[in-house]
Amino acid sequence: MKAIVLEKKDSTPLYHDARLTEVPVPTPTEDGQALVKMDAVAFNHREVWIRKGQYPGIKFGAILGADGVGKVVNVKSGARKDLVKGDRVLLMPSVGWNADPRGPEDASYSILGGGREPGVFAEYALVHENNLVKAPDHLSDAEAAALPLAGLTAWRAVFTKGQVRSGQNVLITGIGGGVALFALAFCVAAGANVFVTSSDDSKIVKAVSLGAKGGINYRDETWGKKIMSVTGNEFLDTVIDGAGGAGMRHYMAALRPGGVIVSYGMTTGPKVDFTMSAVLKNIEIRGSTMGSRDEFHDMVSFVQEHKIKPVVSRVWQGLEFSEEAFETMRSGKQFGKLHQMLRGREIHGCMTHTLLSATRKSEGPIVVGGA
Amino acid sequence: MKAIVLEKKDSTPLYHDARLTEVPVPTPTEDGQALVKMDAVAFNHREVWIRKGQYPGIKFGAILGADGVGKVVNVKSGARKDLVKGDRVLLMPSVGWNADPRGPEDASYSILGGGREPGVFAEYALVHENNLVKAPDHLSDAEAAALPLAGLTAWRAVFTKGQVRSGQNVLITGIGGGVALFALAFCVAAGANVFVTSSDDSKIVKAVSLGAKGGINYRDETWGKKIMSVTGNEFLDTVIDGAGGAGMRHYMAALRPGGVIVSYGMTTGPKVDFTMSAVLKNIEIRGSTMGSRDEFHDMVSFVQEHKIKPVVSRVWQGLEFSEEAFETMRSGKQFGKLHQMLRGREIHGCMTHTLLSATRKSEGPIVVGGA
Repeated sequence: MKAIVLEKKDSTPLYHDARLTEVPVPTPTEDGQALVKMDAVAFNHREVWIRKGQYPGIKFGAILGADGVGKVVNVKSGARKDLVKGDRVLLMPSVGWNADPRGPEDASYSILGGGREPGVFAEYALVHENNLVKAPDHLSDAEAAALPLAGLTAWRAVFTKGQVRSGQNVLITGIGGGVALFALAFCVAAGANVFVTSSDDSKIVKAVSLGAKGGINYRDETWGKKIMSVTGNEFLDTVIDGAGGAGMRHYMAALRPGGVIVSYGMTTGPKVDFTMSAVLKNIEIRGSTMGSRDEFHDMVSFVQEHKIKPVVSRVWQGLEFSEEAFETMRSGKQFGKLHQMLRGREIHGCMTHTLLSATRKSEGPIVVGGA
Repeated sequence: MKAIVLEKKDSTPLYHDARLTEVPVPTPTEDGQALVKMDAVAFNHREVWIRKGQYPGIKFGAILGADGVGKVVNVKSGARKDLVKGDRVLLMPSVGWNADPRGPEDASYSILGGGREPGVFAEYALVHENNLVKAPDHLSDAEAAALPLAGLTAWRAVFTKGQVRSGQNVLITGIGGGVALFALAFCVAAGANVFVTSSDDSKIVKAVSLGAKGGINYRDETWGKKIMSVTGNEFLDTVIDGAGGAGMRHYMAALRPGGVIVSYGMTTGPKVDFTMSAVLKNIEIRGSTMGSRDEFHDMVSFVQEHKIKPVVSRVWQGLEFSEEAFETMRSGKQFGKLHQMLRGREIHGCMTHTLLSATRKSEGPIVVGGA
């Protein structure tokens, strides 16, 4: 089968190869293993960082890609009665984190693609049946492929960590990134009053069209003071942030006592100051990554129930075009501020799933992504 | 009646007077107001900071003191059937925070003594009957007076914010401060495995005698690396910290994924770095202050149930000796590191209730405190 495989290349600056190559179709050998024929796969910036050597635990020769949707071909001695051949399924984008809301139970927790767990940028993928979830019916293949990694990250940030509820005031920063856009959709569906920040007025306008109540352009030097005016002078309950840096003090000032900042990444600075003022206001900062299998199930059910649709604006037909997708992803300066350098243990803090419009045209797996 | 009243004095360095003076016995004028005859009152460093002008909202002419125990004299049109004349009661040390676990419902929330709410360093105090809780029977007056402010702060840090449960590994930093010592007692009673830090080996020994499993002297430059060895190589679930500063990175390294740092003060630095490593580990920092009336009730019930006793080692007989108590409190260098400069809104982040041995000898209110 065709697959996109990571191959070492000592270039300057470092940028390993992602080579389209022929590899054997994998075969289920252990009970519960399922073979899935991929229909669509989606990019995350994670793949670019892996090629740049900025990811721990990468493995040359490994198939890349964490996000995808496909159909069940067969399951070896499967125990799941609800899963039959031909079912259209999403692949849980990580392995080793089942239920603990605090973090992975398994120290060997790992994300699909480029490391110990083979990825999904291939015609077939092999995963445990327990890591398959039926794809929501209302989503096209391209839309479904866009969901797992960014959707799961946003889900955990909004609900598990942020505990967002109907009627609350939520600020989502850096609207435009994949996680932020899913967070927007989830918060709006949950009945929260959502406000956004961006450096780009057109993204704020778009966020408002998607249900946000208002937004602030943080290129305006006085933006910090404007948070309270955009909320109608009400305190924020929660901030969902992937940027970190100096903005944090403005969020703290606009938060109600006991308010929560969920931090899923730090694109504008490597750390955040948690001050005595925050202590005196009972404020909490909660780090948040991708989530567990339980959270993944909850997220997909919620997407199904609320008919949430990722916006997909570009699709390449077949894996042959992946290098073009990589280039678009890598060079897309308009999304650069949303990217997160990930070093350290491989638990995602932030990923920027860039979703672009598409129509399905061929039989091979399509590729969603790029900038 | 005799009372200790804050009087303006422009000295250098600034140190306002706390003058023993005669004031009228207050009279309940509104329904529900209760007059309490004080049996014992206790110092917090808050009173020293107020005299140093380091507290917002202070009011000259106001009676000082937040912590005390006394007996009900009368209640004007009281609605509480469980409260009768002669009941020995603790005074809730703040007003305006009833039930919300996130923070005060009332923007005018205030702590007793030195500000809008008259304090308890007097022969009588006037408070709403709803802010009275029967004092646990197993406590002497001196012990009971020592409980409210530090006990409530420790309670919120340990249970509401830290969510400490039986079997968890908890690190309590700066053992020796009043809040830290109550946190130790609460965690031990809850069945947690408690570890402590101090700059003083004798305090670690004492903490172990009070139920801690071990401790680390942070004067040792390699102390950060020793956390895991003192726990038997198990991760920490929770850190209860009143120091802030650079120690935080060691706590983060020793915390399990999703672990929680409760920050109730920052004596060694005005802020804490929340890093990308913390995000990737799903770690949370939770600011914590004094608590609500509901939390106060829960805390007192717990103290009663588990027969927890504050250690009281010094008592002055009568308010006449308060200046000596102030001096002891102010000069006590062995507790200097535990002090917290509080600026900003008057919600306590940290207070160092210093409790010293006593026997009751006279009829007037006794004073608990000093160094």
